[in-house]
Amino acid sequence: MSEYLQRAEKVLVRINELAAITEEQGCVTRTYGTPAFVEGRSLVKKWMEAAGLQTTIDTIGNVRGKLVCSTVNAKTFVIGSHIDTVVNAGKFDGPLGVIIGIDLLEQIIQTKTKLPFNIELIAFCDEEGVRFQTTFLGSKAVAGSFDKNILDKKDKNEITLREAIHTIGGDANNIKEDVIAADNWLGYFEIHIEQGPVLYKKNIPIALVTAIAGQCRAAVTFTGVAGHAGTVPMDMRQDALSCASEFVLATEAYALENKNNLVATVGKLDVVHAAGNVIAGKVVCSLDVRSADESILISSIQQTKKRCEEIGAKRNICVDWTVILQTKPVICNKELNALLTQSITEKNYELVSLVSGAGHDAVPISEVAPVSMLFVRCFEGISHNPLENAEIKDIAAAIEVSDHFLNKLILNNS
Amino acid sequence: MSEYLQRAEKVLVRINELAAITEEQGCVTRTYGTPAFVEGRSLVKKWMEAAGLQTTIDTIGNVRGKLVCSTVNAKTFVIGSHIDTVVNAGKFDGPLGVIIGIDLLEQIIQTKTKLPFNIELIAFCDEEGVRFQTTFLGSKAVAGSFDKNILDKKDKNEITLREAIHTIGGDANNIKEDVIAADNWLGYFEIHIEQGPVLYKKNIPIALVTAIAGQCRAAVTFTGVAGHAGTVPMDMRQDALSCASEFVLATEAYALENKNNLVATVGKLDVVHAAGNVIAGKVVCSLDVRSADESILISSIQQTKKRCEEIGAKRNICVDWTVILQTKPVICNKELNALLTQSITEKNYELVSLVSGAGHDAVPISEVAPVSMLFVRCFEGISHNPLENAEIKDIAAAIEVSDHFLNKLILNNS
Repeated sequence: MSEYLQRAEKVLVRINELAAITEEQGCVTRTYGTPAFVEGRSLVKKWMEAAGLQTTIDTIGNVRGKLVCSTVNAKTFVIGSHIDTVVNAGKFDGPLGVIIGIDLLEQIIQTKTKLPFNIELIAFCDEEGVRFQTTFLGSKAVAGSFDKNILDKKDKNEITLREAIHTIGGDANNIKEDVIAADNWLGYFEIHIEQGPVLYKKNIPIALVTAIAGQCRAAVTFTGVAGHAGTVPMDMRQDALSCASEFVLATEAYALENKNNLVATVGKLDVVHAAGNVIAGKVVCSLDVRSADESILISSIQQTKKRCEEIGAKRNICVDWTVILQTKPVICNKELNALLTQSITEKNYELVSLVSGAGHDAVPISEVAPVSMLFVRCFEGISHNPLENAEIKDIAAAIEVSDHFLNKLILNNS
Repeated sequence: MSEYLQRAEKVLVRINELAAITEEQGCVTRTYGTPAFVEGRSLVKKWMEAAGLQTTIDTIGNVRGKLVCSTVNAKTFVIGSHIDTVVNAGKFDGPLGVIIGIDLLEQIIQTKTKLPFNIELIAFCDEEGVRFQTTFLGSKAVAGSFDKNILDKKDKNEITLREAIHTIGGDANNIKEDVIAADNWLGYFEIHIEQGPVLYKKNIPIALVTAIAGQCRAAVTFTGVAGHAGTVPMDMRQDALSCASEFVLATEAYALENKNNLVATVGKLDVVHAAGNVIAGKVVCSLDVRSADESILISSIQQTKKRCEEIGAKRNICVDWTVILQTKPVICNKELNALLTQSITEKNYELVSLVSGAGHDAVPISEVAPVSMLFVRCFEGISHNPLENAEIKDIAAAIEVSDHFLNKLILNNS
């Protein structure tokens, strides 16, 4: 184990070194295309080169390090994660997967392992989508699903995505050059912190990811009648906040009944023109439902909406339901996950299978390649926050299992 | 009835004339001490003088018109309401009571009715408390409960109340001169729009007011744990919004069970750092409970708080409960209300008894005098809104009943 701890320590040093490169001192912020992003990318490129990878920067701005095998027409197995961050981020969300990836490939080079396929490590340039409010720029470019229509989107300083790509050395007209063609993919593997509390509460370092949940987001508006809190008798009210509260609880109750298959959250609730002495006339809520099973996701949305409308009808409150976003679940590849399961159990870790409730670069990649993910425990499940932390022994466990997984994959394909 | 309709028409003309005097054209806004307030006050003073009243402006800024009887040491019966407004107000809230008052006293003068007591009509200068965030300036000055400590309070332009009093011709050092001594009061009568929907829904023009509800306002804060809406399983959540929603519904259910004795409202609900994909970590709610019965008010607050704490404990959510305001109910005077009841029924109106859920100048006056109030139906119960409206036939009914009431009062005291 001490070998893995040593490698984990090197990973942690690099995590901290990369985190020091930020748009704003005192916090970690490195959004797509900014000077901090470019500086961070250069450092990652330097590390990839030092590991012995054939390193390039592609058109959209990903750093890509290759280990090319000698077989003609060999397929490519991609290891990836992202190096952009949210505003005031943690240090691990994204960089952990990239920096462990460097370590894993350096190990393959140093052990002179013969490869039956190409391996490419990709540090994706934009997963969080902070600057242009559009996620997965880097992995969509590689998967071939980049939407050219978003090139004219502007950031808050009125700079277009097209201009931002140019500024960091790319050319928006050539993004198709970044694509790995669908028939060239062998598979995809991503290591990422869990960003949830399950491993932390179970006291287990790593988990197999079985799926990435599909999402449905809706905006739900309740319109009743505003009134004086002192003068309208209780039985003459059409209180939009009471109605919204009943919806919040009904949603929670439904999700608890189906807790093994979904999560549902009302995170925003705005009382329009709110005052303590005014009965709420209008309330706008968010709804966020996620499930690894598409049919469950669809039926849960239908049932939640039906329940919401019943509550509105009962209370004489008008309900407006607008779907904002709907994404399909991604099921991780069975064969890759079988190998990963063996790797976990053969290294004597307890097998925990999780559904990722958060999105990852594996989502767009799944459209063209079999995907797999390994989660690493993080402190109290906290993420997108300076308190985000992964411990060295958990990073060592991730390296140990991933090493084993790659060796198995190489062996199986040799 | 046509006599009363004619008088009501004159009242309505004056209501509209006064409403045209405003701080901002296109809406009715006449807050304490502003040029619009002074202009409106002058018009009311002119009307009082024209009616034949001995009219003065007192130190705080009320317009006061007296009918003095010839008896030595006679007590004073006060008719009052206010002429200040909220921002973007209706035309009737306040002015209706003052302008009907002018009509009633003009009638007494014209009919040469011999008075066994003095009558004073007071147009109070500040009931709404918009400018200095402190209500009942005018009626507190007359009742002797004006708090000199508020003289240094500033409006949004950094002008103190002391300066505002000076600007409109008063002297903050002499407010005690405005007092009618407690042993000089015979009683108090106020006509006001209902500001609630009961008369409108019952299709009845006027109502007897039995009490003005006491109020308790509290701020209730729920602190749970914020988390990622996708990654925290349903049974590991400490969702502050679900907890607050359960409190909203528990409060509503309690108030519905006790609907004959109280109203309770959660009108504000703020999710701190709300986002659709974040489980709410902290929610701040308002609570407003009103009842005509002090013991019911106190016990309802205790029970609502207890229920809130139970909900918090069950959900592992920290609850903070801060009482912001607590006022006692005012019970209208039994003898005056008996006379008013006779006046209503003898004029063949159906007797409806209401508790006022809104505060009125009668509240501070009740500390020194027996008080009584007559409510006038308003359109859909809407108030503090340009849609506020009272119909001419309802104003006529109020004049008819109030005329009868005053004649009975005079007869009883002769």
